[in-house]
Amino acid sequence: MPRFEPLSQEALATVERGSERLASEVGVQFDHPHALELFREAGQTVAGDVVHFDPGFLRSQAALAPSQFRMRARNAARDLVIGGDHMIFAPAQGPPFVRVGDTRRDGTMADLEQLVMLTQMTDALDTPGRNILEPNDVPLDSRHLIRALTAIRLTDRVWSGEPSSEAAAQDCIRMAEILHGGREAIEREPVIFGNINVNSPLRFDVRMLEGLLAYADAGQTVIVTPFLLMGAMAPVSVPATLVQQTTESLAGVALAQLVRPGTPCVLGSFLSSTDMKTGSPAFGGPESALGLYASGQIARRLDLPWRSGGGTLTTSQTVDYQAGYEAFNTLSAAFLAGANVCWQSAGWLEGGLVTSFEKFVADCELLDLLQAQFTPVEFDEASLAFDAHVEVGQGGHFFGAAHTLERFRECFWRPTVASTDNIDRWTRRGELDHAARASTRWKELLEAYERPPLDPAIEEELVEFVETRAAEVGDVISVR
Amino acid sequence: MPRFEPLSQEALATVERGSERLASEVGVQFDHPHALELFREAGQTVAGDVVHFDPGFLRSQAALAPSQFRMRARNAARDLVIGGDHMIFAPAQGPPFVRVGDTRRDGTMADLEQLVMLTQMTDALDTPGRNILEPNDVPLDSRHLIRALTAIRLTDRVWSGEPSSEAAAQDCIRMAEILHGGREAIEREPVIFGNINVNSPLRFDVRMLEGLLAYADAGQTVIVTPFLLMGAMAPVSVPATLVQQTTESLAGVALAQLVRPGTPCVLGSFLSSTDMKTGSPAFGGPESALGLYASGQIARRLDLPWRSGGGTLTTSQTVDYQAGYEAFNTLSAAFLAGANVCWQSAGWLEGGLVTSFEKFVADCELLDLLQAQFTPVEFDEASLAFDAHVEVGQGGHFFGAAHTLERFRECFWRPTVASTDNIDRWTRRGELDHAARASTRWKELLEAYERPPLDPAIEEELVEFVETRAAEVGDVISVR
Repeated sequence: MPRFEPLSQEALATVERGSERLASEVGVQFDHPHALELFREAGQTVAGDVVHFDPGFLRSQAALAPSQFRMRARNAARDLVIGGDHMIFAPAQGPPFVRVGDTRRDGTMADLEQLVMLTQMTDALDTPGRNILEPNDVPLDSRHLIRALTAIRLTDRVWSGEPSSEAAAQDCIRMAEILHGGREAIEREPVIFGNINVNSPLRFDVRMLEGLLAYADAGQTVIVTPFLLMGAMAPVSVPATLVQQTTESLAGVALAQLVRPGTPCVLGSFLSSTDMKTGSPAFGGPESALGLYASGQIARRLDLPWRSGGGTLTTSQTVDYQAGYEAFNTLSAAFLAGANVCWQSAGWLEGGLVTSFEKFVADCELLDLLQAQFTPVEFDEASLAFDAHVEVGQGGHFFGAAHTLERFRECFWRPTVASTDNIDRWTRRGELDHAARASTRWKELLEAYERPPLDPAIEEELVEFVETRAAEVGDVISVR
Repeated sequence: MPRFEPLSQEALATVERGSERLASEVGVQFDHPHALELFREAGQTVAGDVVHFDPGFLRSQAALAPSQFRMRARNAARDLVIGGDHMIFAPAQGPPFVRVGDTRRDGTMADLEQLVMLTQMTDALDTPGRNILEPNDVPLDSRHLIRALTAIRLTDRVWSGEPSSEAAAQDCIRMAEILHGGREAIEREPVIFGNINVNSPLRFDVRMLEGLLAYADAGQTVIVTPFLLMGAMAPVSVPATLVQQTTESLAGVALAQLVRPGTPCVLGSFLSSTDMKTGSPAFGGPESALGLYASGQIARRLDLPWRSGGGTLTTSQTVDYQAGYEAFNTLSAAFLAGANVCWQSAGWLEGGLVTSFEKFVADCELLDLLQAQFTPVEFDEASLAFDAHVEVGQGGHFFGAAHTLERFRECFWRPTVASTDNIDRWTRRGELDHAARASTRWKELLEAYERPPLDPAIEEELVEFVETRAAEVGDVISVR
């Protein structure tokens, strides 16, 4: 399917000029001596901890990154292609709270395990990412180890490493090496993501830079994501915010290329507005949709894969009409804009503070729907079904037509949670709304879950590594 | 904004060839001797009540219709332009039932009046149309008179006449004449719509043809709408259904042009799928979105204004997540496809059986949102807000920046029902979901309603006409 591209070439050139100027005149702060050293060696102007970039430098660095690449999963059928016409999807990442039905509480490891299992059960999702929610009952310093082990054990998919801190990143890289046969194997083709958030505006902090440097050095996929709420971390103008986003994400990509030319990178975007009355973030509105359409055009102009900022974003506190339309607006904008990597695509609620089990499966229906909607349909003579019209003629119906009978099972997309019940049937079944039906759905999925095979020797090595490293940071845990 | 146009020129040519073949070889049935006579006089082949069209005939007739035209409202600020880049919106049309909160019951005249008042209060809506719901407590034979009088009294906007039966259509035309200064005035510029549904497949029944002939003769706007549920009234293939839709709507437009060359016409579309397990209609899915994108391309190729099949369609029984995303998918497809006339854009629930007060105002928020989303944004140097970046620098925030302070009131779209409240505030306010907040919203709107001015002499003439005509059909009513 074609992309929706509302920006003219002139508008894109304006953003590009603005980004060059911002990178050069205002510059970007890097809180890490090695990052500053790399930029200095590359001939850029470093004033204190701020780098001022020569015109054209960021784009020439970005040109070293592949426009498309493959990521290897334990199950080869789950390998990913990042870039081009390909799209991959991950559920919500990072919420500290969980909502199950009417209960909202701290997220736990048991919740995370169930959500990772649901991801494994869902064809429309490609990766559990890193933390579908925060398991608050697991010690902080060893949390990344347990999360990585959970992703490995409960799915056979690509997963995502800890982005911040040198030690955590190296732990995740080491676990990827154990799983995939050593450093050389994972350097040949990346197997994990590292998503690096920018401390917008125009600043990379030391922990995120430690992660970026480590993942780039190991040849793993580096996503550089400015998180921009207009009015807070960016100006209250979509064009200005796109300029900032481009500058920030290119600066991160440029650094990754200095560490290791050819590092697989993804331009990140996460652009939304602020409710200026309250200062609260707002999601699913017109500004973020335009931002997504434009982000796709900018990334394609740079010939880089890109990550859309959502996903099924919503500010809603519950799985209601608002949650449905805000999620759909964000996710359909990602499809229309041709996003390659869609994080936050299932379960996100309450502006990202909550992962909802009900919304998780409701959102998966949207993914499924839009994947069908953006699959091209063949328009040829056969598709015109002329014989069906000859058979039915005027004023009849097509229920019994041969053309229908041959195709009725597969001819239309079928929802998993949505209902077409008439009012009598719906009333008899207890007047369940979408959220209530979703509550049944995720429990059914979990019951059907089967753990994917994992070589026991590899699992043993991973378990030993996790327990040893946890002990080294002072946490006594058992993951057997 | 540009349109989203997924069909190639070859695909469009395939649909066009298919439509020519269907029109010629299978033909269209017209249950009205005058319609058959007009086609016979125009040289077409009439076999019984089926007309077989010469290749090119339908398109040459369609070329007589204007590609854009104006409709006059009582309040000149509410005049409409139909065609080109213009879009107009009407609420749900036709549901027999109403939902108010948790109560679902037969629609009444009091409900209809309130919904017409809500339409008048809503800038995003352009016309009340004909029957936002069916007022089941009004006698059937005089219902059209009362509905027209209600639209005239409670709004200052273009409204829609009764489509079926000669007498009802003539009554509505006469009321338009009284309101707008006589036959000549309304023939100069149309003032009402007549929406003619096709008895798909490929048949126009006598009552709808009576309406079509009457509105065309009076120079009023004729919308020709095939109502196509794939699997029931059309084959289970989007391309085949588009061929049928094109043939049917063009056949109606061609007839209107034979009655009166230059009759303002709108190509209708209403294309969705059927749940093949139950036979129930399904709305808001991928097939209907593709159908909308394609319908826009087909209409532009024919250089005719077009009506999209929705709107904020949904199969959901209640104002929930499903209702939100299905409505959004249909309505955003209409925007992406550049629909000129969007019927069914507020309140539609339960597959069109119910008009919901809560969904009415919830849907108006979507209209408002999408109107903002599809308004082009200027990308120029000023929009880049370079000075704001100089002011804020690295790692700061934009809440207090001069650029923000100058713009914070108007910089972002603001919802009317959606909430960005944090969890504490939302809980304190009673944990209201979107539907519950919408319930407050429509009541507030109604309280602020003011009846638009209407010349007392004209109102008196309308009242006399309505009471006289009602008495002639045997209904004793008082509308004073």
